[in-house]
Amino acid sequence: MTFHEIEGGVCAPKGFTAGGLHCGVRKNKTKKDLAMIACSVPCVSAAMYTQNKVFGAPIAVTRENLVNGVAQAVVCNSGNANTCNADGVSKARAMCRLTGEALGLSEKDVIVASTGVIGQTLELEPIAEGIGRLSRQLSENGGRDAAEAIMTTDTIAKEVAVEFELDGRPVRIGAIAKGSGMIHPNMATMLSFITTDAKIEKAPLELALREVVRDSYNMVSVDGDTSTNDMVAIMASGLAGNAAITGEGPALETFIAALRRVCVRIAKLLAGDGEGATKLLECHVLGAPDVKTAKIVAKSVICSSLFKTAMFGADANWGRIACAIGYADAQFDINRMDVSLSSLKGEIAVCRDGFGVDFSEEKAKEVLLEKEIHIRIDLKQGDGEATAWGCDLTYDYVKINGDYRT
Amino acid sequence: MTFHEIEGGVCAPKGFTAGGLHCGVRKNKTKKDLAMIACSVPCVSAAMYTQNKVFGAPIAVTRENLVNGVAQAVVCNSGNANTCNADGVSKARAMCRLTGEALGLSEKDVIVASTGVIGQTLELEPIAEGIGRLSRQLSENGGRDAAEAIMTTDTIAKEVAVEFELDGRPVRIGAIAKGSGMIHPNMATMLSFITTDAKIEKAPLELALREVVRDSYNMVSVDGDTSTNDMVAIMASGLAGNAAITGEGPALETFIAALRRVCVRIAKLLAGDGEGATKLLECHVLGAPDVKTAKIVAKSVICSSLFKTAMFGADANWGRIACAIGYADAQFDINRMDVSLSSLKGEIAVCRDGFGVDFSEEKAKEVLLEKEIHIRIDLKQGDGEATAWGCDLTYDYVKINGDYRT
Repeated sequence: MTFHEIEGGVCAPKGFTAGGLHCGVRKNKTKKDLAMIACSVPCVSAAMYTQNKVFGAPIAVTRENLVNGVAQAVVCNSGNANTCNADGVSKARAMCRLTGEALGLSEKDVIVASTGVIGQTLELEPIAEGIGRLSRQLSENGGRDAAEAIMTTDTIAKEVAVEFELDGRPVRIGAIAKGSGMIHPNMATMLSFITTDAKIEKAPLELALREVVRDSYNMVSVDGDTSTNDMVAIMASGLAGNAAITGEGPALETFIAALRRVCVRIAKLLAGDGEGATKLLECHVLGAPDVKTAKIVAKSVICSSLFKTAMFGADANWGRIACAIGYADAQFDINRMDVSLSSLKGEIAVCRDGFGVDFSEEKAKEVLLEKEIHIRIDLKQGDGEATAWGCDLTYDYVKINGDYRT
Repeated sequence: MTFHEIEGGVCAPKGFTAGGLHCGVRKNKTKKDLAMIACSVPCVSAAMYTQNKVFGAPIAVTRENLVNGVAQAVVCNSGNANTCNADGVSKARAMCRLTGEALGLSEKDVIVASTGVIGQTLELEPIAEGIGRLSRQLSENGGRDAAEAIMTTDTIAKEVAVEFELDGRPVRIGAIAKGSGMIHPNMATMLSFITTDAKIEKAPLELALREVVRDSYNMVSVDGDTSTNDMVAIMASGLAGNAAITGEGPALETFIAALRRVCVRIAKLLAGDGEGATKLLECHVLGAPDVKTAKIVAKSVICSSLFKTAMFGADANWGRIACAIGYADAQFDINRMDVSLSSLKGEIAVCRDGFGVDFSEEKAKEVLLEKEIHIRIDLKQGDGEATAWGCDLTYDYVKINGDYRT
C-alpha cells in the first residue's frame, strides 16, 4: 500500500469545491469567518460529535440532518459557537436552509458547524449575506480559504490530502481542521471536515471514521478541555470509480489506512499548533497490558500541566512523567518501566526498571530544546501500544486565554 | 458548637512540640528543609496516602509504621521527594531510626515524609546531623518553624488551630500543611500533619479523618497532578482529658466538625497559594442529583485550564464554566442550570436555565478583579451540594514550573 501526500486539501477528491470569506461574524475584517464545502453529487456521509453534555446548536441540527447518511455541503462559521443561546437551533437551521437555497440542495443535506465564543447571540444577517456571496465563489482551489475561515486561535491553517489506489484507480482523501484551545476530544473531535471520492457505503464509512478517530483526534490534548462544538464529518462522493466498498475486506482496510494517515497528520498539526505551543509532544507507550491501558497512560502524560510546563522550559524533570504515569486511571505494574526522551538531537534514558538513572543535563537540554519531543515509555509487561499528542504549556497559553473574548 | 481559632498550629494541642531548621538537603541555606513534631506520650494515629501508583519511599515506610495505629513523632524533609530511588526505603527507615534514637522512641513510632524533586538520590548525611540538632530544639513555639520547613514552592507557611469543648473540657486540633503545585489529591492529600489532644480511639479517629479529607483536601486542585508523596497524618495525644471517643455519637460529631473546620481552612490556604496563583476560586454546586455529582461538577470547573486562565484575566467568559460542567463525568440535566460569579464587589448572573443572560462587562470586571472569586452553579434538580477550591492559571505558574529543578 502506498500513499502519496498531495495538494488541494478538501478539494483534492473528485467532485468537491470549497471557499471561505469574511462575512462579519468577527469584527476583524482581515479574518475569514465563513467556510463552505460542496459536492457535485450527494455524498454518503458520517460524523462524530462531542460527548460534552453542553453541546452547540449546530451539533443538534447536523445530527438530525445526517440521520439518513447523506450530505452534499458543509457550512461553518467561526467567531461564535452558537452554543447556550435560546434561539441557537433555529439559527443553525436557517444556515442550512440558506445554504441549500444558494446551492440548489435540500436543507437536510447540509452539515452545519460553528466555533468561537460560547453564550453570545449569533447575528444571522452577515451570515445570510455571506452564504449567498460564498456560494458563487466556490472553486477547486478554495480548500485553503475554507481551512482559513474555520480558524479561531489557530496560527496555521490545517489541511492534508493523500492519494492511493483501489482497483487500479486513484482514490483521494482530503481534510481540513481547526482547533488550538479547548482541545481534549472525548470519543469525538474538534472541527474537522474530510472529503473523499472513494465509493463506499454508509456502514463501512462509519466504521472507518470511528476506528480512525479513536487513534488520531481522540489521542490529542492541548488543555484537557473538551469543547462543546467538536465535530468530525466525512463526505464520500463515490466519483473515483472504485468498486463500492460494502463491508469488511482488503479495500476497507486500505481505505482505513489512508484515512488514518490523513487524521494522524491532522492530529499532529492540531497538537503542534496548540494555544501558545512552542513544541509538539508525542508520547509513545509500549509494553502495556493492553491497548486501552497504553492509551490511558499516554494521555495522562500528555495532559500533565507540570510535564507540559517542564517541556516548555526544556527541563528533563522526568519525575513529572513518572507522577503522571502513576496517577493514570488503569491497573498495571509501575516497577519495571523504562522512560526515555528524544528528538532530532538524540535520545536520553531517564528511568530504568522504575528508578532514575544518571544522565547528562547538558545533553538533555540539547535534546529538549528541539521543536518536536518524543517520550517513550516501556511498561515491559504486555503488547499494548498507543501514541498520544500534545504540546507544551507556555506564557502565551495564559496570555491567549486570559482575555479570549476581546 | 463553638470553635475558636487559636494560635500555635500543631503545638496548640497539649503534649506537642515542634521545630524546623536548614540541614542541607537544599542548597539555599536560607530555606529550612527539615521539620519535626513530637509528643510527650504515644498518640493514637491515622493517615491517608496518595493513590498514585508511583509513591515515595516514605509513604511505604509510614504505612508500615502506622499498622498498629500508634505514633509519637513526625520527621519530614523538603527539597527531595525520596521517590523512584533504588535505596529510598532504606533511607526513609534510617530517618525513622535516627529520629527514634534522638527522641528515645521506637523507630516504628515515627511518621516519615519527604517532598521535593522526584528521582534524585537523597543524601542522608545532612539529615542525620539535622535530626540530632533539631531534636534538641523542639519547643511549644516551634509549630511555625515546622510549617516553614516543609514548604516547597509555597509562598506562605500554612498553619491553623482551633479550640472547642468536649465534656466541658477544652480540646484542641492543630495542623500544618504544604502544597502549591502537583496538587490534585485523590482519596488522599498533599502533606499535612494534624495534632490533637482529644482522647479518641483508633477506629473513630480513622473515620473522622476519612470523612473530613473527602470534603476538604480532596476538593482542592491546583493543576490536576496528583503527587507521589501526598500524605495527611493525625496524632491524638489524649491529654485534653475528655471522656474517650470510642465510636459514633455526639462527641465524635463535634470532633469531626472541628476537624472539618481545620481542614477546610487549610484546603483554602493551599488553593489560594497554588503555584503562581493570584486568586482563590471557590466553586459551589447545588441542586445536583446527589453529592457525588455535585463534587464531580465542582471539581471539573475548578480543574479547567481555560476557566482558570480566564479568571486570571478577570474575564467573565462563562462559556468555559458551561463547557467544564458539560464534560463533567456524571449524569445530570444541564438544561436548567443557573450560574453566577461573585466576590466582595457583588454578584453577576451569567446563565439562567442553561442560556446566557446579558450582564454588564464593566460590573463583571469589577467583581472578577478581586482576590477571592465564588462560582455558584445551581443545577436545580436535587439536593446534592459540594464545594471545591482552586486557583487561577498564570504566567507565574509557567515560570515556576518551566525550570523547577534549578
